[in-house]
Amino acid sequence: MTKQEQLPTLVTHVELMIEARWVVPVDSSNNLHEFYTVVIHHQVIVDVLPTAQARIRYTATESVVLDDHVLIPGLINAHTHAAMTLMRGIADDQPLMIWLNNHIWPAERAIVTERYVEDASLLASAEMLSGGTTCFNDMYFYPQATAAAASKAGIRAHLGLTVLEFPTNYAADADDYLQKGFEAHDSWRSNPLISSSLAPHAPYTISNQTFEKVLTYAEQLGLGIHTHLHETRDEISQSEASYGVRPIQRVADIGLLGPGFIAAHGVHLMPHEIDMLAEYGCHVAHCPASNLKLGSGIAPISALLKNNVNVCIGTDGAASNNRLDMFSEMRLAALLSKGVTEDASVLPAHQALKMVTINAARAIGLENKVGSIEIGKQADLVAVKLSDFSISPCYDPVSHLVYSCGREHVTHTWVAGELRYSHGTYANIEPVELKEIIQTWQPKLRQYKH
Amino acid sequence: MTKQEQLPTLVTHVELMIEARWVVPVDSSNNLHEFYTVVIHHQVIVDVLPTAQARIRYTATESVVLDDHVLIPGLINAHTHAAMTLMRGIADDQPLMIWLNNHIWPAERAIVTERYVEDASLLASAEMLSGGTTCFNDMYFYPQATAAAASKAGIRAHLGLTVLEFPTNYAADADDYLQKGFEAHDSWRSNPLISSSLAPHAPYTISNQTFEKVLTYAEQLGLGIHTHLHETRDEISQSEASYGVRPIQRVADIGLLGPGFIAAHGVHLMPHEIDMLAEYGCHVAHCPASNLKLGSGIAPISALLKNNVNVCIGTDGAASNNRLDMFSEMRLAALLSKGVTEDASVLPAHQALKMVTINAARAIGLENKVGSIEIGKQADLVAVKLSDFSISPCYDPVSHLVYSCGREHVTHTWVAGELRYSHGTYANIEPVELKEIIQTWQPKLRQYKH
Repeated sequence: MTKQEQLPTLVTHVELMIEARWVVPVDSSNNLHEFYTVVIHHQVIVDVLPTAQARIRYTATESVVLDDHVLIPGLINAHTHAAMTLMRGIADDQPLMIWLNNHIWPAERAIVTERYVEDASLLASAEMLSGGTTCFNDMYFYPQATAAAASKAGIRAHLGLTVLEFPTNYAADADDYLQKGFEAHDSWRSNPLISSSLAPHAPYTISNQTFEKVLTYAEQLGLGIHTHLHETRDEISQSEASYGVRPIQRVADIGLLGPGFIAAHGVHLMPHEIDMLAEYGCHVAHCPASNLKLGSGIAPISALLKNNVNVCIGTDGAASNNRLDMFSEMRLAALLSKGVTEDASVLPAHQALKMVTINAARAIGLENKVGSIEIGKQADLVAVKLSDFSISPCYDPVSHLVYSCGREHVTHTWVAGELRYSHGTYANIEPVELKEIIQTWQPKLRQYKH
Repeated sequence: MTKQEQLPTLVTHVELMIEARWVVPVDSSNNLHEFYTVVIHHQVIVDVLPTAQARIRYTATESVVLDDHVLIPGLINAHTHAAMTLMRGIADDQPLMIWLNNHIWPAERAIVTERYVEDASLLASAEMLSGGTTCFNDMYFYPQATAAAASKAGIRAHLGLTVLEFPTNYAADADDYLQKGFEAHDSWRSNPLISSSLAPHAPYTISNQTFEKVLTYAEQLGLGIHTHLHETRDEISQSEASYGVRPIQRVADIGLLGPGFIAAHGVHLMPHEIDMLAEYGCHVAHCPASNLKLGSGIAPISALLKNNVNVCIGTDGAASNNRLDMFSEMRLAALLSKGVTEDASVLPAHQALKMVTINAARAIGLENKVGSIEIGKQADLVAVKLSDFSISPCYDPVSHLVYSCGREHVTHTWVAGELRYSHGTYANIEPVELKEIIQTWQPKLRQYKH
């Protein structure tokens, strides 16, 4: 159903119409529409047009009127470990290696089971939906448990088939991780909300041989690759000591770099490494809060953007952020790039908004399906109320979204045309379920607290 | 009335008791109390003790029970221009000089009157109270109008008697600014919520002669001095060109540095300048979001703290932030210092909380009156609910306040024992008043928008 086909005189009946004061489609023209309506049928955006015209051309089973709101594409969290939500704040203010060795890894060894991952991922899904996130790119153990939680919550998830060399509760060795990953991948093939990537954890936890296997499987299955890369200086010096090259050169030599490759973090990058990322069409998932909080450093986002590297934004896990909040992450990314370059015009608001929507969709290979409000795309949509006194007045809804708003101003979150969150209530999650999850796991995890 | 006097058997009747799951007094011992009660009578904190004991020793006209909350001292915004709230987001993503010359200054010339300042300061006071800010250190034109708005809202304000050399709607020349400042100062002498400082705007807008006058008056009246200092590289190079020294040396030579001196920003500081600030007992009001957003740079907070300079935190005005939000500012300060130093243990949570409470109270000379929850101090208190799913679980209320919470989790704000804000409602401000303010001024200001 296209706009043209409806033009003559027909009135079309659809499932859902959302009339908004403003619509920011995040399309290639940086449009900002006033008094616009998004028309949705069978989960898909079928029209985007002035409200005055929409009222003539369409009738709808359900109409939502958003007088003080801006309607934007659902936000996409480009790098997270959703199931770490129950470890939120378990070891704050700790240097990275103490954080990992004394707190996070012991907790994971003792606690992480399929049940844990499903419970923690449900809490994470609830947090993300309430903050306007409609899709997340994840990497963790037991991805089928995260798929189950995301499906229940009704949030879209791009799940890494995680690979490590060392044994965990989840798998024994790299082949076992891969095997379990493929079983998970097969399990969600018919689930429209779930898609997969191959997720070798990081250069310091993956051998060359395993990277080669990952590459082979990625090519055979048509999957992207999601890995931590150049997060810390230690990672780089370890690689130089062990392999004689920096990690990005090592993965390039193996052949991993390409348009399906997402480098999470990318904090420490030399100019020729930025060129490599650009040449191969790789994506960088910038995690500014986590990089600051763990003392990793500040990624050279302005240089990446100048070189046309596709940059998207992730929260990382709740143990190193401690919010799965794409609003505060977007704001931080914009502010940080201006401050580091000492140029206020760097990373303007519309570019920041792209990084949390269409750029992320492109990174996870879903740019034809989500990431903007355009005809034919899935109706992953978020309404943000701009009239609260604490953010008034509003002169420009786009810069307001980035610099003034917080996730608390999200009033509605739709995924595939279904309202999943609105005004404190979830369509498919009861508060008592989340309370029970917290009451079950917090006492077990408390002993690993700093 | 002290704790000792009540010990024997008496039950004392008081005005207000607040029972909280946690109390963080921000005292010198970094205490965290569980199941504690703060007892308030005649605006003053008269006891802080375990709830079980409080229920035996006291009865109260009003009791507030906060089962899921942490009670903290009211936050103090150490540098702002409250009346710029109506210019929120008017010129985002603009370099500083374009921002000032093409947008902010023309808007101020055309719009700023006593009425404007009172209206905009009321909106700012509402925003701050709802985010847990109970006191702000301000610098703007028509301070008596800001005093009127703050008094109405019931928020504490430390108001700069602003001085500039050039004429504005408000005053003709430096002497006129000073004269008007003293009139304002006299007008609020009997107002317990309002106090004063001398606020020469900045080294690039104030002559040596005026700085000398400011110093004389500050000494005569026993007032502190609040100025912008070393905010941008341009400010410093202009000073070198005009005066042959950097601004801090210039104001030191005049004799301004001392324990009553607040340097707002302090972005670009050399090691010997940090030593000077330490030696003179000066205070730095760190404004991380504004410094990033205007491309000014990143202040060396870790080095200032190592040298025992008293650092507090400000939002700056809403035209360069765009939130008067001490929660996001505290979080940003902590994250930024870790990231810049590449050390996760720098600026831990309790230190960040001190920067927005007791350190700020010290900077504005009110450390005996506010800034911590201690017997004898004014009951400026804030309750923050820690049980929302989007910030659960909570392992450590102090690090939770800094890294997980947002201002949206503030449920109650008391100033001098009076509840000024609770759950979306203000004691003394009607929503319709704020709506009218926005509707009056936004159309006038819109033409100055980027």
